[in-house]
Amino acid sequence: MKFSTKVEKCGLSPMRKFHPYAVAAREKGRTIYHLNIGQPDIETPKAYFDAVGAFSQKVLEYAPSGGVPELVAAVQHYYAKLGISYAADEILITTGGSEALQIAMNCILDDGDEILIPEPFYPNYSTMVWTCGASIRPIPTKPEEGYHFADRAKIEAAITDRTRAILVTNPGNPTGTVLTAEEMAMLVDIAVEHDLFLIGDEAYREFVYEDGAPLQSFGSYEKGREHIIVIDTVSKRFSACGARVGCLLSHNAEFLAHAMKYCQCRLSVATLDQVAAAALYSVDEGYFAAVREEYKRRRDTVVAGLQRIEGVVCECPKGAFYLMAALPVDDADKFQQWLLEEFEDRGETVMFAPGEPFYGTAGKGKNEIRIAYVLQEAKLRRAMELLRLGIERYNQR
Amino acid sequence: MKFSTKVEKCGLSPMRKFHPYAVAAREKGRTIYHLNIGQPDIETPKAYFDAVGAFSQKVLEYAPSGGVPELVAAVQHYYAKLGISYAADEILITTGGSEALQIAMNCILDDGDEILIPEPFYPNYSTMVWTCGASIRPIPTKPEEGYHFADRAKIEAAITDRTRAILVTNPGNPTGTVLTAEEMAMLVDIAVEHDLFLIGDEAYREFVYEDGAPLQSFGSYEKGREHIIVIDTVSKRFSACGARVGCLLSHNAEFLAHAMKYCQCRLSVATLDQVAAAALYSVDEGYFAAVREEYKRRRDTVVAGLQRIEGVVCECPKGAFYLMAALPVDDADKFQQWLLEEFEDRGETVMFAPGEPFYGTAGKGKNEIRIAYVLQEAKLRRAMELLRLGIERYNQR
Repeated sequence: MKFSTKVEKCGLSPMRKFHPYAVAAREKGRTIYHLNIGQPDIETPKAYFDAVGAFSQKVLEYAPSGGVPELVAAVQHYYAKLGISYAADEILITTGGSEALQIAMNCILDDGDEILIPEPFYPNYSTMVWTCGASIRPIPTKPEEGYHFADRAKIEAAITDRTRAILVTNPGNPTGTVLTAEEMAMLVDIAVEHDLFLIGDEAYREFVYEDGAPLQSFGSYEKGREHIIVIDTVSKRFSACGARVGCLLSHNAEFLAHAMKYCQCRLSVATLDQVAAAALYSVDEGYFAAVREEYKRRRDTVVAGLQRIEGVVCECPKGAFYLMAALPVDDADKFQQWLLEEFEDRGETVMFAPGEPFYGTAGKGKNEIRIAYVLQEAKLRRAMELLRLGIERYNQR
Repeated sequence: MKFSTKVEKCGLSPMRKFHPYAVAAREKGRTIYHLNIGQPDIETPKAYFDAVGAFSQKVLEYAPSGGVPELVAAVQHYYAKLGISYAADEILITTGGSEALQIAMNCILDDGDEILIPEPFYPNYSTMVWTCGASIRPIPTKPEEGYHFADRAKIEAAITDRTRAILVTNPGNPTGTVLTAEEMAMLVDIAVEHDLFLIGDEAYREFVYEDGAPLQSFGSYEKGREHIIVIDTVSKRFSACGARVGCLLSHNAEFLAHAMKYCQCRLSVATLDQVAAAALYSVDEGYFAAVREEYKRRRDTVVAGLQRIEGVVCECPKGAFYLMAALPVDDADKFQQWLLEEFEDRGETVMFAPGEPFYGTAGKGKNEIRIAYVLQEAKLRRAMELLRLGIERYNQR
């Protein structure tokens, strides 16, 4: 039986393949420090569960396709506080940032089209782009340069007549890089000049670790406002990944009309989660300050740990809760498998995400890993110690 | 700026266009009886809200991409009671039946492919199919024949070398038709013989109004089990449309592997709604018997009301909570607008869904309407009276 050629190009999650090895390791009694997934351990604000408990409608009805008005208003207010003005009908609530991305790409990309994405990038982008019949043209970076991609010449060199959009994750997953205001303006400029959409996946907006740094968004650029699409979500902002509530923001009426077709086609986003997500926006600044402080300490712990390992290349990232590092090993994939099958120190081992699946260019990222620093400091310290010991022994085999 | 040619083919919801007229009518003080939407008024079982309230995890985490184990087990158990055996990994939990349909179509349909769907059909199917780059080939029906489509010669005549699947909604939306066991077997037979997928959208399974009729599913057919994909949802079964919890069931390992790529790409379905949906499956048989009895009475009320109107063509439908009828008017669309702008009886008027958008064949359904009988009996009686008066006066203008 035939399947779509588009889905046939896609793969299952590359992270999944280590799952059986992790299960086997646990069965042998190993403790595994999981730095391989971006699931935060921070508690979801109580406001969420309170709102869910206070829901009093007897019939759990479809929500409006564009979102429940109280959530749209909450998002609108959040952006207004950043000095960014979106009308209510310029905000479409989506099932997580993932759906916002899928809808945006599906509206823009046709068969044979290209989208520029700095590599390494979030691996799900590949499935999203391929299922549109399009392809990713990676903007190349290097670990030695802290994965810096915002270079005008480098980006413009990648633009072809099939390029429709530039997608950047800022703050970055998997690299933790954060754009400067000048770099953001330059990207807007490129989008306008080459008549491209500029999609800003800003899921990690609150996670920037420079003291006093203002929250950034491509939504704040007046020039090229029709070109800019912002992807947002409550997942990381409020440690509410399981709510599956995100949104799509744009000033482009034609784009919004197309996106609404997708929204209507899937009817609505879960009603209760939207009501509860609206309540999350009432959380005060103190929440973010505390979370930011916590992640900053964790980042510093991981970076300090990595710097203690000879041969590791890792610039200190400025945001998100990830970092990429190049290891002094032949193959991070083999190394991960070895860590699960052969290695242990006092019954413990460590898991990260091998770097290759984060690249669009074949063969790149082979000795790199992504670390999600979603564990408490003491555990992170031990995990870095295990990584150091692992590398040592792996290279002495 | 360019958009995808696929999304450009799609339209916004045809139901939406009457929204401003309805608002204007309400502003003039009119009461509107809404028979135009499929949002049931039946209360969602308390089990849902109890489960939500009892959720005690402090971090609202991503659920597994294929669904939370307790919900998968609940679905598995529900099917086992129908005598149908699905392994846990043959069930993928989705964001409503809509996502299950989108994933299924995206896995199967390529650019230029065709899918057979009896017309009239659920209008969102068009967006789902067009965004795959494919097209719908309608299986034609007639109001005078009760929209009966399950005729082997008629279906086989529509199969081309680009046909990849047959999609049937059973019980039917918008027609309320219910297939016989022989017709279902015949459809399975066609799918096997022509090497097609057979997608059964069985959202309304519980809503069949023949006394003692067993619950049907294409999942019960052993022959051709690799060809059969079942779409399911808690939306109508438990009057929980806003939960956005559905599922995709199949015995085809290759199909499931492709579908999982989509599931992983959007990470997961809302966690809390899945936990609560699992609790819904504990509702006892009495719930369904009462709901079925209620809808049966409503159907009979609407059908009796329609039979009192001269020139209306409507066979009594056997299931779901919809029916299609041909009216003695020139154009149901114009008639609906007139009902909102010009008509009133004691300050009241009525809304239905004009039939044309339910057809894939241009020009068909012009004098037809879809009625969703989601109001209580007394209101339905009055709505039918308003329809009768409206037709009379409309034709006397």
